[in-house]
Order: sequence, then structure tokens, then C-alpha cells
Amino acid sequence: MSSKSTIPPPSILLTNDDGIFAKGLESLVTVLGKRHPIQVVAPESEQSAVGHALTLTQPLRVKKIFKNGDLFGYGVSGTPADCVKIALHELIIPPPRLLISGINLGPNVGINVIYSGTVSAATEGAMMGLTSMAVSIDSYQTREFETAARIVSTLVDLLIKSPLPPGVSLNVNIPDRPLSKIKGIRLVKQGTFRFRERFERRIDPRENVYYWQAGILPPPEEAPDTDHALLAAGYVTLTPITFDLTHYPSLTRLAFLEKATLV
Amino acid sequence: MSSKSTIPPPSILLTNDDGIFAKGLESLVTVLGKRHPIQVVAPESEQSAVGHALTLTQPLRVKKIFKNGDLFGYGVSGTPADCVKIALHELIIPPPRLLISGINLGPNVGINVIYSGTVSAATEGAMMGLTSMAVSIDSYQTREFETAARIVSTLVDLLIKSPLPPGVSLNVNIPDRPLSKIKGIRLVKQGTFRFRERFERRIDPRENVYYWQAGILPPPEEAPDTDHALLAAGYVTLTPITFDLTHYPSLTRLAFLEKATLV
Repeated sequence: MSSKSTIPPPSILLTNDDGIFAKGLESLVTVLGKRHPIQVVAPESEQSAVGHALTLTQPLRVKKIFKNGDLFGYGVSGTPADCVKIALHELIIPPPRLLISGINLGPNVGINVIYSGTVSAATEGAMMGLTSMAVSIDSYQTREFETAARIVSTLVDLLIKSPLPPGVSLNVNIPDRPLSKIKGIRLVKQGTFRFRERFERRIDPRENVYYWQAGILPPPEEAPDTDHALLAAGYVTLTPITFDLTHYPSLTRLAFLEKATLV
Repeated sequence: MSSKSTIPPPSILLTNDDGIFAKGLESLVTVLGKRHPIQVVAPESEQSAVGHALTLTQPLRVKKIFKNGDLFGYGVSGTPADCVKIALHELIIPPPRLLISGINLGPNVGINVIYSGTVSAATEGAMMGLTSMAVSIDSYQTREFETAARIVSTLVDLLIKSPLPPGVSLNVNIPDRPLSKIKGIRLVKQGTFRFRERFERRIDPRENVYYWQAGILPPPEEAPDTDHALLAAGYVTLTPITFDLTHYPSLTRLAFLEKATLV
């Protein structure tokens, strides 16, 4: 018998907001599954733009999902944040060591991050004490997730050795190109890029007005040191994310408000 | 004719996440309506814990809501963030000068803020260039919103003279007590208070498992300088809120990740 103790590889919980049948999630299962015990708890259906929503007024249902006769994971009738909570409280025992949310089809950069179910799942994981990562690919139509999944695997190795600070998660965006064309990794702040909203007014067959809400891609106008700009330039971008929404500079700037006379 | 030019009072857009028929919203209409032109665009039904969700896969419908024969506002089949976007793009012309979201029944303090539709509406307003405030009362059952609405009116007067910094909104929490018992106003950071989640497992009449997600109030364990602690102590708390989720200290601490070798 060897005198070396063998440390089992950390188990990884996977979730997403594109739904449990999405290709981006499957690619993580395939690539990370070679070296780690994997568990999947993901929304049963697509949940894009749900932000950090929780399901409180409806019951949650959990369904075992099989692929090729094997248990693939649990499909939940809720949001990504619901999935993380119910995974850690009810489904996954003992708790996983890491959480990865993704790989999302489409980037999550700039202000758009606040609408992202993908990022919210990672924030939720960080709140619950897991080293957590949200991963998105810079394309709305790729089926080539394997390069991105391999980059995630590299980041997992690094974060096992050096976990993230408590409460901080990592928002990872990956260019949709072969590894040889990726320029490197940049740790950057969230930029101010956001979709401009557009409402399309229509009339239904019963003569009632309704609106479709859509996003328009604005012209690029970003500082070069932001997530959006560096991703477009071919870098993998990493943005550390907090759940503390306080705008600290304003704590001094707005001090005059404390002097208000209440009448 | 007087030589003084008369500046019309700024118009105020009101929204909430408890729905357009909620008492807290009505109290703002009553109190602020005495001195400002008011417009209401709010969810038709309760939208608690929807966070910053947007409605993209369903159409949005808008209904005129009348009270006592007068137009009270627009009821929208969507989330608070949807309401702000559609108000500014389709419904309210010219744009309002301020946005107030609330008064929410129940506090929005600590980490719970990230789940709050009330706060998200204010964040959305700030993103769209309005001086914006989210207002919540520290009670789940009060019907006495008038004191809170008067405090909001005082804050509105101050913010008309000194608008908030661009992109920053104000999260306001008000004790549920008479003005004489309110100790003052404190500008504070978001604390780490959060509900602990609990899942209640049940069996439906068809023998299927389902879960109710609920929150449990944890024992108080907060630093005394946070929103949660000061609100409980009887202060109106004001927290400046940003949409930039970057955890800046980690931008240097995690620099080693940029050195990863991609293979």
C-alpha cells in the first residue's frame, strides 16, 4: 500500500440558464467529467434574462434527466438561482467544492451582467460558500464549445489551488475561436456596455395592443480596458463579481442627506 | 405678470414590485401628488423576488388602470425592470425627472437586495439617466405608509436640488413607526444580512414530489454600521446602489489568473 494519501478530485456542481439540455452545459460535463465527479442541477427550460429571480409563489419540481440510460442530472422548474439553492439544500450531498454556471450561449459583459441568470447562479454559489464561476461564449450560434470548456478546466485547476475570496465569484467570457487565436487572459472590471432596449408594438387577432421587448446592439464605444472591449479583441476576460451593490464613493458624497429635517 | 419665471415641479414616475393596486404605491401617489405631476407604471400583479428579470420570451401587455373614474396609471404584465423600460420608451412622454419604486411592504436590506424587484426598478431608472430611489418599509403588514411617504417627499426635495451621481440610485428603508420615534437618517453600506433558505418537500395528489421555497429570518449577527442593524435601531437608512458588480480588490489579488497557460 502506498504511503501517499490520495486526495479525491473536487466535485463540481454544474448549472446554467439555457436549460439542462443546452450544448454549452453538455460540453462542461464532457470535458470536466474526465477529471472530476460532476453533478448537474439546471433549469428544465431556458431562463435567459431572469437575473437573480427566485421562485417563491410557485412550487418547484425536480425531475431526474437521463441521457443514454445514465442519470445526467436534475431538471428544476425554476431559475438558475433556485437551482443552486435547491441543489445545496436538497439534492447534492455532500456539498460540491465548486460551482460552474454555463457555458452560456452569448457573452455576459458590461451592464448586461445584472440581467444574467448565468452570472446570478455563480453569485448565489459564492454566497453559499462555493468557489463559483459563470462562463459565457462570445457567440449566439456556436456549437463549438470544446475550446471554451478546456479553458474552464484550466481555470478550475488554478482555483482549486487558490480559491476565490469569500463571497466573490468569477465572470468568465471566452472568445468563440480556436485556442491558437485566443490572445490571452485578462482580469478586468465590468464595463458599461449594454443593449439598448427596443419595444415593438403589435396588434393581436383580437385587436389588443401588445409589445415585444428586444435588445439592440449599440455601436461599440467602450474604454479599451473593459470586459466587452477585451473580449472583442480576442482575450478571455475574467471579472471578479460581488453581491455588495453599495456605491462606496457616494457614502461620503451624499452625506448631506443625513442632515435632512424629517417633518 | 410676474417677472419671475415659474419652474414647473419635476414630474415623478412611480413603480413598485407589489403591483399597481398596492397600498404603498397609493400612499406615494397621495403624498407626492400634492406637489408633483405623477405618473404610475407598475406591474399588474405582485412581482416579489423577481430581481432584475426582464420579460423577453413573452409579450408585454399594458392596461390603463382607473380609480374613482380617473386614470391612475398603467398596469404592465411584466417585472419592475420591464415597467421602467416600457415607461420611458413607450408610455411616458416627456420623460419624468425622477423615479421612485415602492413603497415596498417589507425591508430590502443586506444581501437580500439582489433579489429585490423594488431595488432593480431603481437601478434600471439610474441606468436610464433618472434620479432614482427604491423605498421599503420595515414591516410585512403595516397599512400605515403615510409617515414613510412624507419622508420620501423630504428626500425628493433634497434630490431635486442635488441629484444623485450618474448611474447611482438610492435604496431607502424606513422604520414602521411614527415620525417622533424615528431616530434620524443614516447613509450606510449594504450589510450581509440575508434570509436563510428552507425547502419544504411535499407530495401532490398525484403522488409527485414538489418543494416550496421559503426564507427563514436568521438570528441578528450584524455589524452595527449596516443597513439592517440601523433600520432595526429606528433609523431611516439610505444606501447608494451601483450596477457595477466588479469586486475591485480582487482585480489585483487574482492577477495570477492572467498567467494561466491555455492548452
